[in-house]
Amino acid sequence: MSHAFPQPLDAYQVPRFAGLPTFMRLPAFEDPAQVQIALLGIPWDGGTTNRAGARHGPREVRNMSSLIRRVHPVTGLSPYDAVRVGDLGDAPVNPIDLLDALKRIEGFLASIHAAGAVPLSVGGDHLVTLPVFRAIARQRPIGMVHFDAHSDTNDRYFGDNPYTHGTPFRRAVEEGLLDPKRTVQIGIRGSLASASDTDFAEQVGIRIITMEEFADIGVEATLREARRIVGNEPTYVSFDVDVLDPAFAPGTGTPEIGGMTTLQAQQLIRGLRGLNLIGADVVEVAPPFDVGGCTALVGATMLFELLCIVAESVADRALQTPK
Amino acid sequence: MSHAFPQPLDAYQVPRFAGLPTFMRLPAFEDPAQVQIALLGIPWDGGTTNRAGARHGPREVRNMSSLIRRVHPVTGLSPYDAVRVGDLGDAPVNPIDLLDALKRIEGFLASIHAAGAVPLSVGGDHLVTLPVFRAIARQRPIGMVHFDAHSDTNDRYFGDNPYTHGTPFRRAVEEGLLDPKRTVQIGIRGSLASASDTDFAEQVGIRIITMEEFADIGVEATLREARRIVGNEPTYVSFDVDVLDPAFAPGTGTPEIGGMTTLQAQQLIRGLRGLNLIGADVVEVAPPFDVGGCTALVGATMLFELLCIVAESVADRALQTPK
Amino acid sequence: MSHAFPQPLDAYQVPRFAGLPTFMRLPAFEDPAQVQIALLGIPWDGGTTNRAGARHGPREVRNMSSLIRRVHPVTGLSPYDAVRVGDLGDAPVNPIDLLDALKRIEGFLASIHAAGAVPLSVGGDHLVTLPVFRAIARQRPIGMVHFDAHSDTNDRYFGDNPYTHGTPFRRAVEEGLLDPKRTVQIGIRGSLASASDTDFAEQVGIRIITMEEFADIGVEATLREARRIVGNEPTYVSFDVDVLDPAFAPGTGTPEIGGMTTLQAQQLIRGLRGLNLIGADVVEVAPPFDVGGCTALVGATMLFELLCIVAESVADRALQTPK
Amino acid sequence: MSHAFPQPLDAYQVPRFAGLPTFMRLPAFEDPAQVQIALLGIPWDGGTTNRAGARHGPREVRNMSSLIRRVHPVTGLSPYDAVRVGDLGDAPVNPIDLLDALKRIEGFLASIHAAGAVPLSVGGDHLVTLPVFRAIARQRPIGMVHFDAHSDTNDRYFGDNPYTHGTPFRRAVEEGLLDPKRTVQIGIRGSLASASDTDFAEQVGIRIITMEEFADIGVEATLREARRIVGNEPTYVSFDVDVLDPAFAPGTGTPEIGGMTTLQAQQLIRGLRGLNLIGADVVEVAPPFDVGGCTALVGATMLFELLCIVAESVADRALQTPK
Amino acid sequence: MSHAFPQPLDAYQVPRFAGLPTFMRLPAFEDPAQVQIALLGIPWDGGTTNRAGARHGPREVRNMSSLIRRVHPVTGLSPYDAVRVGDLGDAPVNPIDLLDALKRIEGFLASIHAAGAVPLSVGGDHLVTLPVFRAIARQRPIGMVHFDAHSDTNDRYFGDNPYTHGTPFRRAVEEGLLDPKRTVQIGIRGSLASASDTDFAEQVGIRIITMEEFADIGVEATLREARRIVGNEPTYVSFDVDVLDPAFAPGTGTPEIGGMTTLQAQQLIRGLRGLNLIGADVVEVAPPFDVGGCTALVGATMLFELLCIVAESVADRALQTPK
Amino acid sequence: MSHAFPQPLDAYQVPRFAGLPTFMRLPAFEDPAQVQIALLGIPWDGGTTNRAGARHGPREVRNMSSLIRRVHPVTGLSPYDAVRVGDLGDAPVNPIDLLDALKRIEGFLASIHAAGAVPLSVGGDHLVTLPVFRAIARQRPIGMVHFDAHSDTNDRYFGDNPYTHGTPFRRAVEEGLLDPKRTVQIGIRGSLASASDTDFAEQVGIRIITMEEFADIGVEATLREARRIVGNEPTYVSFDVDVLDPAFAPGTGTPEIGGMTTLQAQQLIRGLRGLNLIGADVVEVAPPFDVGGCTALVGATMLFELLCIVAESVADRALQTPK
Repeated sequence: MSHAFPQPLDAYQVPRFAGLPTFMRLPAFEDPAQVQIALLGIPWDGGTTNRAGARHGPREVRNMSSLIRRVHPVTGLSPYDAVRVGDLGDAPVNPIDLLDALKRIEGFLASIHAAGAVPLSVGGDHLVTLPVFRAIARQRPIGMVHFDAHSDTNDRYFGDNPYTHGTPFRRAVEEGLLDPKRTVQIGIRGSLASASDTDFAEQVGIRIITMEEFADIGVEATLREARRIVGNEPTYVSFDVDVLDPAFAPGTGTPEIGGMTTLQAQQLIRGLRGLNLIGADVVEVAPPFDVGGCTALVGATMLFELLCIVAESVADRALQTPK
Repeated sequence: MSHAFPQPLDAYQVPRFAGLPTFMRLPAFEDPAQVQIALLGIPWDGGTTNRAGARHGPREVRNMSSLIRRVHPVTGLSPYDAVRVGDLGDAPVNPIDLLDALKRIEGFLASIHAAGAVPLSVGGDHLVTLPVFRAIARQRPIGMVHFDAHSDTNDRYFGDNPYTHGTPFRRAVEEGLLDPKRTVQIGIRGSLASASDTDFAEQVGIRIITMEEFADIGVEATLREARRIVGNEPTYVSFDVDVLDPAFAPGTGTPEIGGMTTLQAQQLIRGLRGLNLIGADVVEVAPPFDVGGCTALVGATMLFELLCIVAESVADRALQTPK
Repeated sequence: MSHAFPQPLDAYQVPRFAGLPTFMRLPAFEDPAQVQIALLGIPWDGGTTNRAGARHGPREVRNMSSLIRRVHPVTGLSPYDAVRVGDLGDAPVNPIDLLDALKRIEGFLASIHAAGAVPLSVGGDHLVTLPVFRAIARQRPIGMVHFDAHSDTNDRYFGDNPYTHGTPFRRAVEEGLLDPKRTVQIGIRGSLASASDTDFAEQVGIRIITMEEFADIGVEATLREARRIVGNEPTYVSFDVDVLDPAFAPGTGTPEIGGMTTLQAQQLIRGLRGLNLIGADVVEVAPPFDVGGCTALVGATMLFELLCIVAESVADRALQTPK
Repeated sequence: MSHAFPQPLDAYQVPRFAGLPTFMRLPAFEDPAQVQIALLGIPWDGGTTNRAGARHGPREVRNMSSLIRRVHPVTGLSPYDAVRVGDLGDAPVNPIDLLDALKRIEGFLASIHAAGAVPLSVGGDHLVTLPVFRAIARQRPIGMVHFDAHSDTNDRYFGDNPYTHGTPFRRAVEEGLLDPKRTVQIGIRGSLASASDTDFAEQVGIRIITMEEFADIGVEATLREARRIVGNEPTYVSFDVDVLDPAFAPGTGTPEIGGMTTLQAQQLIRGLRGLNLIGADVVEVAPPFDVGGCTALVGATMLFELLCIVAESVADRALQTPK
Repeated sequence: MSHAFPQPLDAYQVPRFAGLPTFMRLPAFEDPAQVQIALLGIPWDGGTTNRAGARHGPREVRNMSSLIRRVHPVTGLSPYDAVRVGDLGDAPVNPIDLLDALKRIEGFLASIHAAGAVPLSVGGDHLVTLPVFRAIARQRPIGMVHFDAHSDTNDRYFGDNPYTHGTPFRRAVEEGLLDPKRTVQIGIRGSLASASDTDFAEQVGIRIITMEEFADIGVEATLREARRIVGNEPTYVSFDVDVLDPAFAPGTGTPEIGGMTTLQAQQLIRGLRGLNLIGADVVEVAPPFDVGGCTALVGATMLFELLCIVAESVADRALQTPK
Repeated sequence: MSHAFPQPLDAYQVPRFAGLPTFMRLPAFEDPAQVQIALLGIPWDGGTTNRAGARHGPREVRNMSSLIRRVHPVTGLSPYDAVRVGDLGDAPVNPIDLLDALKRIEGFLASIHAAGAVPLSVGGDHLVTLPVFRAIARQRPIGMVHFDAHSDTNDRYFGDNPYTHGTPFRRAVEEGLLDPKRTVQIGIRGSLASASDTDFAEQVGIRIITMEEFADIGVEATLREARRIVGNEPTYVSFDVDVLDPAFAPGTGTPEIGGMTTLQAQQLIRGLRGLNLIGADVVEVAPPFDVGGCTALVGATMLFELLCIVAESVADRALQTPK
């Protein structure tokens, strides 16, 4: 049966450096109705307040995703045997006009959502998650497991700008897209602009597991807490690569030392298996700062880890849904 | 007399790697009235349609300008003996909001202009020249010697966006800030989006000396033509580092092969000596793409070349003006 | 009529960093019969005797080709208005087995040739030109304008190996694929293994214009000589990026200082306009040594220059051929 | 009250890439009497026996310190609310003459010390700590918590040279500046020139906690031991970035694999809270070897961690001292 | 007595950047009979299926080995006091012809083996271990402790190629060179081409300790298991740098995130002390991908760790063997 | 006869990346009496006033010299057929003590000179030429053709330091080692510390051909002038890589834009054929700033160009000298 599903190019036949770099070497699709999971890029960093470059993220993550193979090493399962996955290309963007860009991205995601496909996107800076939420969470707020060095719940920048990569989740809560009670942020750390930086998150009920707490309680306890918070309702996973220490992911706009290892991040993602997942993203891979390309490889591998757990969730739901 | 003027730190006493990296190791000033020439940064690249990064230009050009000494090797003159020059810091910007950024930049430049100082700015992408013009050319249109691989007279991007780093000079002509008949563009080259790309420039009377023509006629004839066009009226010099071949200036957003050498660029700037210069800029140094830092050094050196000719012009006018 | 032909993505609508990086942002094709000119990659460097890496050339040249626009700046013409051009993907290769790789490449090129499409390929090391010749010049030997620092007419390596990137044109002459009397090599330079290095080329009648001679006689005389040699018969253009000075093209396996500028190379390619061109390639772009990516940009731009002259030739022949 | 103290530039108003890169974006001061804690650079690496470059450390640490915010994430406190902190610029140096350099540095530090300010310096190679000690510990020997891969208690180099970055703490003990019984070295590791390398340290009573022991006993036990050794007497903290694994801090002159993570280093510094701290430094950031700039970011962040604990100590002493 | 043995250059006399970069700054030898342990390079990566470059590994590991000192920090012993160690240069290779290369390498190793010297080699890609085994394990199969992200027991590539860097240990088992029952692979991880990827290893009895298991059971338990498996019989240690996380060793052909730290790797090697060691290697250091050179330093340091345990083993056997 | 002379390793047998990187892959010698021309490194940059790193120059120039072949492309001659050439290793240095370093270097060069060998050295910063002169020009002053962006005839730095890389030729004239009347400096350019910077050179009669003059008069006239000045008396050639534009040689301590191309430099060196050459050097290759390694390749190639003309001169003198 699995042969009916799109498969990555076989590296035993076509070397990894050959061929067009689609995500995971999968076929490219234009019609989201042909896939159950839509891999897509959102090449836009217009919300970046300091070091831009994440606009180039989708291209380099696609490039390095040629190194990823088909089967997950722990489960022994391939997402491509479970569901139809394809590369839907990039969302339309506007590098010059922030509000227009948010609309274009939302429109693209809405068409994917309308077609019944689950989006797995690669940013772009973290503001791109907001139009994704607008596309998929209009009906009712969703939960989120959020990996990041930063809470991204700030309010205003440079006078009165409400939209930057430091504000998406405040806006998402305000817009009723994100249920703060079902939101957990893991890996938060780094110096603060003010002691009140996390006031909003705390007031609305977002659970912050700082890097310090994570280092203290470990992967297992963190996972128990995260799963308790999001429960069985629809949940999104947002993975900002700056949750990782810059040793592991230097190519990002706002690096903070003292972060997580990739192994810990993998263990955390794997531990989310079985949740009711309705989308995920990997954001803030900024190739111009990614000397050597390792961060793009990290992004591609985390995308695969996310794909594996989302694919199981999609397949499960498909089984439960009468056609 | 020269000792009354601000001087760079002496590298025979303080090594070049020491001290705060102001432009040319000059003192920093907050009040433009204290200088005749204001060196300033415009750290903004919100008009960039492809590879951002020029927002980091002023910082790195300041950094590499520590390698520049006081005296011009050909004239044997020091601009710091002729006029008061200082580092006025960076224009305020807004990396998130294009229109707000243009206003902030214009405001800062207007205050410099009002104080009687001549601006010598380091971008930023080329759109920053537009608010500079708005600040200094409101009264009557100015002439320009423009070094660039691109004419930057396009019209609209991504739908209907009139402001990008590909449009400043079309806007400047439309707004009556730039006199197209007194405008010469040197070094234009590279593939075109359409055969009509230069129609606007030609229709309004801008003289384009393509790289091909420049290679054909050489430095001297180019200079004669440029001087003929701008004449003795107030003239601005805008130097986009992508006029140089990427071998000489790789750290830029829109590199085009087949460009000029730095020696040719120096000869051209030196040949503008004696013009009636009212401002100049160096733009599109994009440090994230500047492996090795050579482009920032090029930017700093070209800034010094411009400073030398502008200083002479400012000093000349000061002599001619009864106080 | 031109609208019937495949066109690159419009950068005024889709920014250059977005979308899959096909050559020139053209549509991808699987069937060579759908195009008149087939852009293709040959990602293989198994003939490399020192620094490998050209296997990654096609991917990075595709990547940087997003910066190239539609219309040639000197002629004002677009190749996409003249002929059907598309990205045919990569030739199949075998990074482990040299002889098998040569066969696979030849097979892919033969299918393109059989379909009536003209190949414009991106290597790969220079040995890839040999299987291209085997595919397109079996019937009668072709002429060649060859840009390179090296003559590539050596005989044996590491004992008795006849096939390396230093031998393709000796083999091509021996196999009757290349007419040495109609072959000109431009830019040859660099220290020699032995004073007899060029004996073979001279004996069979290949005309070598060394870098020293080129520097002496200039572009125009070089072009006259090249055109005289190849005449109006079918001619191939092979462009090894190491003909350029390493300042312009550092990302290559066998750099030799004292080379050509990109501007000179562009002038030379443009001067081949009107020849009877039946194929071309750009080889030896080695991304692992291409710090900053400039060499891939050079490769992409030279590919566009070649495309423009080949497109005219193909269009001319199409006009002359009764359907 | 806190508003009376110097504050960093607000990144919500002025983007991080704008403005002169002082340490932490603080105001620059010339008179040390105006601050309680003097941030300063010591741009000198004349004691380096292998890979020089730390002379450029202060500039790049200043540059990356633009990414640090005001408030410590664990304590929720800002050092800038507790004490007056400013950037005092760079110590005078002499890159050509070692003994003269040591004198110049000592003089600058002595003036800071005389003004009652506590120095927090950024090297430079580790030999710069010796003239700091000569300036602040002449009256009686001080204690030290020393983070490093190397004990830096060697004796002679290249014949009979007593001063290199491998000898400062032997000299400091010999000169009665450093109390070896109140000195603990943490993270020592790497191959030794001879089995007797640590004889001096052991004989004078320095406590070495090797990386192996640290890995064994962990952060808490290490902190207990360190605090026991230095007690409540005046203590200096010297942080050589090579205590970190090169994955976290590649840009240093003498990298040793198998080092600490930044998170461990942060936990260790944080655990020194409450000690009687009279100065600190971050040394051996060598930008020419710091591909990507991460080591400078690490240096800036560790400087902030040190600033936070030193500020508390300075504020405590100020409270206890009748004015 | 130790003075009779070859010693590294003394860095207190000759700075590390001076002199020819032999392994560990040891004397070079041509006759293997003059040493007990032969350090050698195998500069060949013809078995690489994706990113080549390990051919440059020996040169850069030699280069960075100048940073390694004489004495092990934990044992306080120097291998150069225990046995005669020297740099035997590089094995002859053929970058163009895989089978010829395997023969040349085997021949060189056979001559070392015949001379009674134990080989400690630096690759090259992992296929180089196969000809080493052919040279030293013809008489009876040996055991192996294998550090790697990949099992390297695949079967066929690109049609029917039996020899790549993904197949050496399958071939070694088939050829009776490697005893699978005495083989343990540590650190295996990363996505799989198929769920059956490890079937061969499991069927022949190779013990795989995945990265996940290692993270779970820790260094001590892993060592107990490894020592139990290989026992006291002749054992080889093969260290592929990709067992390390790319943060620690980015310069390799097939990086996999989620790997080991260098400290863990050092602890593991140190824990093999006392085994009956008959050879070792460090492979897959690929300098073209090693931005900053850290991976070569890691390779050099791991080579030293291996040298220390192999030297003890060689010295022990020498004591037990009547001369 | 040539077979009696030392020859480079043959790259047709041993690939360029294999083997120890001696200069030009020549045999290493300890006794200078065994060679007529001694290639040597002087790994020392203690005279550097800004960006150090040239201490690593000899190692990287040796490394890249593996790419140079045996025979000069223009003359068709091999220096290894004319004279005995070998790699004599590195001069002893002291990175900590300037005066001691100058003595050590002089001593090493004196032993080479005493043995009758002609030194061809690779620096190191330009101060290393002073001890070379002290070793070879004690008896009477020599002439010099000096390629450089800087005259290097400054007087005092950082107070009263007479020895830096900006002073060697003032000292050499003062010490009677260098005949200023027979000295020509080519390529001088860049901003000056003071208009009097070249006063000393002019007063003692050194002929400066600035970059501007060189660009004006060309290679041939420059050569005529240079040959006229130095005449037939003993002459040294000193090649500072910063004479080249940073596009061609970025890896140097004091880059100045607007420099020479490598082709021009090669033409100039080739044009010195037939002079009475008694030594030469290539200095200021600074690998830490040499992203991509091109500058080391330039250094190695220019060393070969120098070797070819020096070898002819040495061979000529040998013919004229009765044995």
